Amino acid sequence: MNVGGKHYRSIWPDEIDPSLVWIIDQRKLPFSFEIIPLRSTDDICFSITSMAVRGAPLIGVTAAWGIALSAIENAGSKDRIADIRNDAARLKATRPTAVNLAWAVDRMMALLEQQEPSADLAAVAHKAAAILCEEEVECCRRTGLNGLPLLEKLSKEKNGATVNILTHCNAGWLATVDYGTALAPVYMAHDKGIKVHVWVDETRPRNQGARLTAFELGQHGVPFTLIPDNTGGHLMQNGMVDIVILGCDRATINGDVANKIGTYLKALAASDNNIPFYSAFPVSSFDPSLECMSDIPIEERDPEEVIFIEGKGLNGTTIVQLCPDNTPVANFGFDITPARLVTGLITDRGICKPERKEIESLLLQ
Amino acid sequence: MNVGGKHYRSIWPDEIDPSLVWIIDQRKLPFSFEIIPLRSTDDICFSITSMAVRGAPLIGVTAAWGIALSAIENAGSKDRIADIRNDAARLKATRPTAVNLAWAVDRMMALLEQQEPSADLAAVAHKAAAILCEEEVECCRRTGLNGLPLLEKLSKEKNGATVNILTHCNAGWLATVDYGTALAPVYMAHDKGIKVHVWVDETRPRNQGARLTAFELGQHGVPFTLIPDNTGGHLMQNGMVDIVILGCDRATINGDVANKIGTYLKALAASDNNIPFYSAFPVSSFDPSLECMSDIPIEERDPEEVIFIEGKGLNGTTIVQLCPDNTPVANFGFDITPARLVTGLITDRGICKPERKEIESLLLQ
Repeated sequence: MNVGGKHYRSIWPDEIDPSLVWIIDQRKLPFSFEIIPLRSTDDICFSITSMAVRGAPLIGVTAAWGIALSAIENAGSKDRIADIRNDAARLKATRPTAVNLAWAVDRMMALLEQQEPSADLAAVAHKAAAILCEEEVECCRRTGLNGLPLLEKLSKEKNGATVNILTHCNAGWLATVDYGTALAPVYMAHDKGIKVHVWVDETRPRNQGARLTAFELGQHGVPFTLIPDNTGGHLMQNGMVDIVILGCDRATINGDVANKIGTYLKALAASDNNIPFYSAFPVSSFDPSLECMSDIPIEERDPEEVIFIEGKGLNGTTIVQLCPDNTPVANFGFDITPARLVTGLITDRGICKPERKEIESLLLQ
Repeated sequence: MNVGGKHYRSIWPDEIDPSLVWIIDQRKLPFSFEIIPLRSTDDICFSITSMAVRGAPLIGVTAAWGIALSAIENAGSKDRIADIRNDAARLKATRPTAVNLAWAVDRMMALLEQQEPSADLAAVAHKAAAILCEEEVECCRRTGLNGLPLLEKLSKEKNGATVNILTHCNAGWLATVDYGTALAPVYMAHDKGIKVHVWVDETRPRNQGARLTAFELGQHGVPFTLIPDNTGGHLMQNGMVDIVILGCDRATINGDVANKIGTYLKALAASDNNIPFYSAFPVSSFDPSLECMSDIPIEERDPEEVIFIEGKGLNGTTIVQLCPDNTPVANFGFDITPARLVTGLITDRGICKPERKEIESLLLQ
């Protein structure tokens, strides 16, 4: 997608130097757009732990590049595979809860482990990371193509008037490599000339909506309006939302979706006002081992995320405290929206109803 | 209620000097507790426009003291009533949308207009303002007494275990003169030894929950936990909320309630999880002219309230920007919760169902 009129991905290998990977430093967004080079496995690890890159799909791809850099760094070592294996463990430990991270590292390692002793591991790993990266982009592109007809249909029903989409958190291209998940159909509709407008929940406490979704939609030229998380219900009551599309961190085999805290409240409002509510994600986010929603563990995060907030001050980025000293705080990262409130699931393999049978047949494709 | 172990009201006349009124400067809360003197009608006007005092009931009482100070200032003027009338118009213009403001000023003026030419208007106005203030306190005290049995019943049902109340915005004593509306039953239960704990929605964009409700509950010693507005649904799904009690800015004769934006989302979650949902307010907040909820106008407020936020920085109170430059923002102040989602209305005249018949008989008492 575009930033300042130029096409960007959230991560890309240098065109000339195979030991160099570039990322957008997402810690600085939206107040400053900075591209930084990652020159080592250490750099890659730090980019993940420091959240210069975030979003499960992007973390996975970044870690894959980490293995590629490790293969270069250890090209001359006595036991190359053992050393790369150590780096793999370090990479997997950067954010132990993200499923894509372990998956990407394991896939890279499985490939390297099966190479002949004489193989050029660096070349193999570089190629594999590039493929994994392209697959991730293709997955999002398909998700977008699969969701696009929903917006085309709404546009037609409204005789070409603007289709209003409400989204929560950031499920855009900054969380992936390109296109995004929930926002992929929106970018595609916009690029096709369909009139769209996005209501962007600011998404307390980390404000991914205000910081990232607002940034990426604005830079690509998609019309949007930032709103406090409290606002969506009122908009839906007043006919100002045509469809809700948001991401998903993990889904049960029955179609319950765990997503950023606050998603459930928007699903209730959509249901109460007969507004279609879709969750968009790659089929890899289905966890077939989860039968019911209470099986999904909900992460409790650092209270400091609620107590303090970062913004642009007079002298650059500044952190301020929002409540009295020593305020007790609860900070749940996700909530679970039961399948009964979900209209459909938009995936890279097509749209399905949040029902066991449909999900199982999608997974078998 | 208490601040630092000492009992306070949000406004009080000086014990000796009738031309002096004291308030808590609520702009400084929660980072600094400052009491400031108001010495003139100008001071009173500025305290309202600058939001040193806020909350409809408190604004009304403050304006009444404004008339009392005007009567002193104009004691020696040629046409006392004409001059006080001018001040009344100025007071009413400070925040034209607050119903209590106009009501309090009109009541004060009606009394002064009917006095004999020889009457001591300053003495009459001072006494009338003091009475209006006491009536406001008594109204909240009764609201608290009427709501208290709900918490006593829940406590009994839980065999004395902590009763968890969720509230939104600030409907506590800082919005009134003492006790508050939604928080009045909570303070009374706590003071009676009933174990209570309050989930405090931070209430974006103005963060009245994080700034004011957290401050006043903490100072009075009521256990509470601050949460992002996105959190309530998850808590209700997981049995962590026993009752929702919040305020109301305006109610229709059919029991629909307009309250701070986000209230409707909490009502949906309460309904979805069979949790009682109460709105607490004085009967004066009923607008018998409003038949249905779409008749209630919803105020759109300054986008800057969403774009910027004030907090405690390293060098005192600091304002930071939360989103990219030139972000389009919508900032609706209130939303409307339909009566079907409301369990009951707690008023100074008792609790009633959100139904026309019950409301009408309450208003006739």
